[in-house]
Amino acid sequence: MTDLPNVDQGGLSWLDASGEHSDIVLSTRIRLARNLQGHAFGARARVNDRATVLERVRKATETVPHLRRAEIRELSDLSANGRRVLMERRLVSRDLLGETEESTGPLSSSGVALPPDVPLSVMINEEDHLRLQALNSGLNLRAAWDLVDLLDEELGQELPYAYHHEFGFLTSCPTNVGTGLRASVLLHLPALVLTKEIGKVLQGLSQMGLTFRGLYGEGSEVVGNFFQLSNQTTLGKSEEDLVDHLDRMVRQVIQYESQARSVLMRDASAVTEDKIWRAYGLLRYARSLSFEELMNLLSGVRLGAGLKLLPGLRVYPLNKIMIFTQPAHLEDAAGRELSPAEEDAHRAAYVRSILSTEGRIFNDEGSDDAPTESTG
Amino acid sequence: MTDLPNVDQGGLSWLDASGEHSDIVLSTRIRLARNLQGHAFGARARVNDRATVLERVRKATETVPHLRRAEIRELSDLSANGRRVLMERRLVSRDLLGETEESTGPLSSSGVALPPDVPLSVMINEEDHLRLQALNSGLNLRAAWDLVDLLDEELGQELPYAYHHEFGFLTSCPTNVGTGLRASVLLHLPALVLTKEIGKVLQGLSQMGLTFRGLYGEGSEVVGNFFQLSNQTTLGKSEEDLVDHLDRMVRQVIQYESQARSVLMRDASAVTEDKIWRAYGLLRYARSLSFEELMNLLSGVRLGAGLKLLPGLRVYPLNKIMIFTQPAHLEDAAGRELSPAEEDAHRAAYVRSILSTEGRIFNDEGSDDAPTESTG
Repeated sequence: MTDLPNVDQGGLSWLDASGEHSDIVLSTRIRLARNLQGHAFGARARVNDRATVLERVRKATETVPHLRRAEIRELSDLSANGRRVLMERRLVSRDLLGETEESTGPLSSSGVALPPDVPLSVMINEEDHLRLQALNSGLNLRAAWDLVDLLDEELGQELPYAYHHEFGFLTSCPTNVGTGLRASVLLHLPALVLTKEIGKVLQGLSQMGLTFRGLYGEGSEVVGNFFQLSNQTTLGKSEEDLVDHLDRMVRQVIQYESQARSVLMRDASAVTEDKIWRAYGLLRYARSLSFEELMNLLSGVRLGAGLKLLPGLRVYPLNKIMIFTQPAHLEDAAGRELSPAEEDAHRAAYVRSILSTEGRIFNDEGSDDAPTESTG
Repeated sequence: MTDLPNVDQGGLSWLDASGEHSDIVLSTRIRLARNLQGHAFGARARVNDRATVLERVRKATETVPHLRRAEIRELSDLSANGRRVLMERRLVSRDLLGETEESTGPLSSSGVALPPDVPLSVMINEEDHLRLQALNSGLNLRAAWDLVDLLDEELGQELPYAYHHEFGFLTSCPTNVGTGLRASVLLHLPALVLTKEIGKVLQGLSQMGLTFRGLYGEGSEVVGNFFQLSNQTTLGKSEEDLVDHLDRMVRQVIQYESQARSVLMRDASAVTEDKIWRAYGLLRYARSLSFEELMNLLSGVRLGAGLKLLPGLRVYPLNKIMIFTQPAHLEDAAGRELSPAEEDAHRAAYVRSILSTEGRIFNDEGSDDAPTESTG
């Protein structure tokens, strides 16, 4: 994308599968909700409040170390597709886009600040005045917390946060009051789904104060066996406790998933291998793919990569496929709007291009070729 | 197969896609039903009759030019799997195997004579004393008729056929009385099926005195969009008329199929291409395939080869896949019995081996590789 030339990897460094357990954990995210004293927040914020908040953040980027040289993008300055690209990269939330039944675009003075060299983003005038977010590859809660905590401290020295001595940080929605913290980890749990243990696991996590969502956060469905696991409460515990608790739980889930993978390979290796290679075959050659089908097939192939059944395949290109086959990314790459049929065709073409390049690097040359693809 | 070392291409020369229209027509078959005077035939034939018939045919191979050097195989001398291999190659009928509810093997003195160098076979003591068959690649009714007619004449000089001056050749089943001729053509009609015109076409053919069956002849279901088209009547017309009539009708059907293929490419090229490449992807990588699924996928890939959408792929290897992935052929290659799950795994492995070799020859090297396959 040409929209973020100054941001490291276009804001996608969390995608590179460099973090711990990245065969099972796609990414770690921690966000803090903050509001500024003296300005109405949430639904009560007026145009004036919002404009002032944006201005104050803009000013802060001159002095706050972690925001220095950050690009501030006002959402109304971007095309509708450009905004969606940011959302698909998980740099801004769906809410910030302002695409609701009542509205077709962002509210005034909505924006995002993206530093060039650290995996941070600050959403401005979302549900709260500020949403500070750190986004890392793999399971990396401690690093994400340290980073966002530092930014929070630096920013708090410039901007007067709304804080109550008893409740903690004040937020637009009461569920965020207290630490304002939500830590979440995006997990790929295909084996727990295949062995039908996922329900039990999620139930247990819910009893431990955790909640799960789909790929796009609140209200989104689970696709491709990706589960976003996060803390439910933000009040009454320290940030470190919340983060440590989630970390312990996630490690437990990773262990369950690993065990389920072993069980699959022990009790149903033929069926599992067949399933994985079929998914690979379809991704490799299909001429049309919906995003949902893609995610389901990708889930199989990702499992295959994790189980070393597709030994030439790295996780990073698979992660890339997830991001770059989303609708706004496909339109961005095409440089124009795409009809639904065109979108599915472009998606399939992108997947083929990645898988054939990926194959070429690791392939036992010549043993596994295909007929020449028609270019007509 | 080691069973037919002296027969050209193991009796599979009809498979090599050398004949006319071989992208649509797999093969042409003409058979003549004959019985010998002085011996009861059909269900009334006793062990003695059958033994004498076999002996007389054996003797005839010494003098009849087209049977000279023919191998005569008595079915009871073959293993059950060896018999099924012959059936899967369409050199003998299912009936000759004698695998009915009452019986687990062939009746006494059942046999087949296979000349080494011409695509002929003579079944002995099937429903009739003799079934003379010529089997050719592609659409080739005239050549098949000439060949089987010659054999019939030669054999008739040695053996006294049961013949009635009014009815013609006498046969066990009244539907064969007269010429005793059945000419059939095995057609691959995927586009007529996809465009849902097949019903209308088959209905029209039925009004023209033709009938259709599946891959294995009478009573077998249509799989993989292969239709075996043949004459219904054998009485009251000359052999040449029957053959010419079928030839005209088949050419008409080929034209319908070609038109339907053009329509598909005009109105639904994206969907068709996607379908074909998906079929290819599954065949290329699946680890387990039932014969029925294989045939359905192969039908798509065969259509793709015909439409030049899979330009590296020849029809001959696809024909080979059809034959060598049948159960008896898989067991024959494995040298042992296979469980159903093993059979599906061996089938998939065979398909992969053929498609990867086939791809290698025609492939734009390096553009389309896959991850190294696990050999574990």
